[in-house]
Amino acid sequence: MSVTLHVCITCRAGQTLSDDEIRPGARLHAAIVEAGAPDGVTIVPVECLSACSQGCSVALSAPGRWSYVYGRLSEAHAQDILAGAAAYAASSDGIVPWRTRPEIFRKQSLARIPPIAALPEAAE
Amino acid sequence: MSVTLHVCITCRAGQTLSDDEIRPGARLHAAIVEAGAPDGVTIVPVECLSACSQGCSVALSAPGRWSYVYGRLSEAHAQDILAGAAAYAASSDGIVPWRTRPEIFRKQSLARIPPIAALPEAAE
Repeated sequence: MSVTLHVCITCRAGQTLSDDEIRPGARLHAAIVEAGAPDGVTIVPVECLSACSQGCSVALSAPGRWSYVYGRLSEAHAQDILAGAAAYAASSDGIVPWRTRPEIFRKQSLARIPPIAALPEAAE
Repeated sequence: MSVTLHVCITCRAGQTLSDDEIRPGARLHAAIVEAGAPDGVTIVPVECLSACSQGCSVALSAPGRWSYVYGRLSEAHAQDILAGAAAYAASSDGIVPWRTRPEIFRKQSLARIPPIAALPEAAE
């Protein structure tokens, strides 16, 4: 089963940009696509991950797994992001052993969300 | 269908606490539970949303909807968090019109993640 790596392509990373400048988020997305998705990872661009003050940002998610959002990223981190995404894809629940995570994933987590489960009405 | 409001109960909100002090995250969870879940919202405690530098934090999620994480919260925000959760539950995709969101949801978003979809293999 494939996991999704969302990359915010509208991020300005706190910079003031003219209309014709490529946004840092778009540059990050291009660098990640150029580096190439590992097996089991689908790269999906997204307009705004609502982490604007901590951009650029990416998110990892998949059915039945914890989701993670990372920030303060640039295209220099493309290879590390993909290594982290590959480790996430290789996990069963999205939780990658701490020491196996790239340093940017250890230090630049913005948030994580437990697996989304449809709860039976009786549990409400 | 119910949506889930996860509340991080281990959050220290940047404070140094003794072992017998109730953590700010646990206080926030207690205040939210005491205020009572709106229809269609299930309150679920969670140990760490990995938003430690921006705590206390909560997350809203449901199958087929955008997930949201909010931070810099305390028990004083319990009613506003529940109002925002009710608006989220009333939406079809998790996206609540901007002006309908509580101010803390407009100003204290840490991140959002697109709906998690199982992609067909052919799309990878």
